[in-house]
Amino acid sequence: SRTLSLAVIPGDGIGREVVTEGLKVLTAVLPPDTKLETKEYDFGATRYHATGQTLTDEDLTQLKAHDAILLGAIGDPSVPSGVLERGFLLKLRFAFDHHVNLRPSKLFPGVGTPLAGSPAIDFVVVREGTEGPYTGNGGTIRTGTPHEVATEVSLNTAFGIERVVRDAYERAQARPRRKLTLVHKNNVLVHAGHLWTRIFEAVGREYPDVATDYLHVDAATIFLVTQPERFDVIVTDNLFGDIITDLAAAVSGGIGVAASGNINPSGEFPSMFEPVHGSAPDIAGQSKADPTATVLSVALLLRHLGYEAEAARIDTAVQADLAERAGQPARSTVAIGDALAARVSG
Amino acid sequence: SRTLSLAVIPGDGIGREVVTEGLKVLTAVLPPDTKLETKEYDFGATRYHATGQTLTDEDLTQLKAHDAILLGAIGDPSVPSGVLERGFLLKLRFAFDHHVNLRPSKLFPGVGTPLAGSPAIDFVVVREGTEGPYTGNGGTIRTGTPHEVATEVSLNTAFGIERVVRDAYERAQARPRRKLTLVHKNNVLVHAGHLWTRIFEAVGREYPDVATDYLHVDAATIFLVTQPERFDVIVTDNLFGDIITDLAAAVSGGIGVAASGNINPSGEFPSMFEPVHGSAPDIAGQSKADPTATVLSVALLLRHLGYEAEAARIDTAVQADLAERAGQPARSTVAIGDALAARVSG
Ligand SMILES: CC(C)[C@H](C(=O)O)[C@@H](O)C(=O)O
Ligand SMILES: CC(C)[C@H](C(=O)O)[C@@H](O)C(=O)O
Repeated sequence: SRTLSLAVIPGDGIGREVVTEGLKVLTAVLPPDTKLETKEYDFGATRYHATGQTLTDEDLTQLKAHDAILLGAIGDPSVPSGVLERGFLLKLRFAFDHHVNLRPSKLFPGVGTPLAGSPAIDFVVVREGTEGPYTGNGGTIRTGTPHEVATEVSLNTAFGIERVVRDAYERAQARPRRKLTLVHKNNVLVHAGHLWTRIFEAVGREYPDVATDYLHVDAATIFLVTQPERFDVIVTDNLFGDIITDLAAAVSGGIGVAASGNINPSGEFPSMFEPVHGSAPDIAGQSKADPTATVLSVALLLRHLGYEAEAARIDTAVQADLAERAGQPARSTVAIGDALAARVSG
Repeated sequence: SRTLSLAVIPGDGIGREVVTEGLKVLTAVLPPDTKLETKEYDFGATRYHATGQTLTDEDLTQLKAHDAILLGAIGDPSVPSGVLERGFLLKLRFAFDHHVNLRPSKLFPGVGTPLAGSPAIDFVVVREGTEGPYTGNGGTIRTGTPHEVATEVSLNTAFGIERVVRDAYERAQARPRRKLTLVHKNNVLVHAGHLWTRIFEAVGREYPDVATDYLHVDAATIFLVTQPERFDVIVTDNLFGDIITDLAAAVSGGIGVAASGNINPSGEFPSMFEPVHGSAPDIAGQSKADPTATVLSVALLLRHLGYEAEAARIDTAVQADLAERAGQPARSTVAIGDALAARVSG
């Protein structure tokens, strides 16, 4: 028998509603010999207003003891933009060295897309999570004057690029199409771009069975709407990954079904799984939020911890449920969670 | 009577074919009292291979004497990626202080779009052209070793942001919907993001009749495919502008109709007009390229030089021609140019 120790962070807005359904499905799918232990953490806007804290060293010590972290959503209009994003979400990614940000994009049958003709979309983006323009590096001089200068420094290391590129090759090799596309802007951002390109090519020599491709980020956005079926695995930097995964979510069913894992592949720190969507305060508390993205994030969590069969059962259940939804009136958060839990345990 | 002195840069690939049609339409639309003087320049891959030069000080002195520049396309697979982009295209933008990169997106009736339901798309992106991550700032240490570090520095000045934001407000105020959206990532790139946001709000107080809005760049890509009709004028930094204008072109008829102006609003330097598409070497010399984007760039050129009525005639001609194309076999580059020239002179 095995114990799965999970840190649960409901967060703000619709976070608690979707996490409740995620846990419902997780409980239903786990094998009887696995004991689930959850501990809830109160991070987010409420705690920030009460204490001024977003994520302390003591919090990180506690979180580190878990096998994984499930997060609903963090963010509220009452908190100035950037405070929780940087003080909690990015701080956690950096502290736990979540250098692989995994974001699958799959257009399930019956699911709406803004694209005409419902193309066959099934790819995964491996976004670097601990470098690039996300390090907070930079600053301002003559702040608030007409002569102000502000800089943002993108930091890129051979170490940081090599490990995420290698992870992406491994994932590409394990998929039927075995194709990996590097997305960057190496004709303009030459310093970082050439480093990414060189490492991408060097590591690629160890994976001769993986076909490779390069696209500038601007061209990649074109193909994501005109030929999304051309993508299998994409590897890219932190900022480009942020941008193209939102676009990818939009074309493959919307953020209601977009899952995400912030992964530390070595297992030195627990990985964190969360829906790509935000806290959606406008619909919070009304059981209107779609918990599917959270449930799919639970599948990523299970796969990461070695529960491949259970993860696959969730994917199958979601696919069946989505197919049934087409043309039906919208169901509540709870109803969707119940239906998915019933399917995975059935 | 007036003389219009134009520097013409056919460039590489399909460049000459599309520029020929652009000039044909320009000649047809100009009033009889305007004398068109053109001078051709041989920038691009051929010159680079023959001389190693991309754009010299002497070239800039010659170009500066013209009223405007019309460019076809620059770039060829025989030249290493980045050499012509940085050595010619970006060098020209920086040397001639082209800080307003204007890119209209309009989905004309009858034109195909990858989006279902053909939404009403009619907006313009004002992209900053002389700052941000495009300055070439940054470098590498321990180059080629496992300990390499590469940086890219985004440079942003109050001076540079204020002038492009002001230009965007002016353009928004002159349009019926009077709406301006700032696109940035100010929750993560806080140094530059806060500077952009502060200036956007401060300048906005001088334009109380312009409605304003803010979107993170990742969210903007979602709305560009799910609700493109929400946009009127967008102002954004150099890199975000690069990315979203390619996406904007893709959803509003493709790069075959995407025009662009690299504008120096003060007139101290000539502005440069070019289609957004590249040199497309795969179809060069076959009269397959669509010259419409170049013809629409000629309209931007005319509008910039004060020929508003002539620019409007080109827009009307293009709209009529595109409507006629629906369902018809593809016409040659020359045939499209002839048809447009006939319409504007008719
Ligand atoms: C909230 C924000 C800091 C975050 C990011 O930019 O990474 C989000 O957009 C995401 O993609 O997870
Ligand atoms: C060719 C390249 C340097 C250029 C850019 O990045 O600005 C192009 O993509 C564009 O948008 O004009």
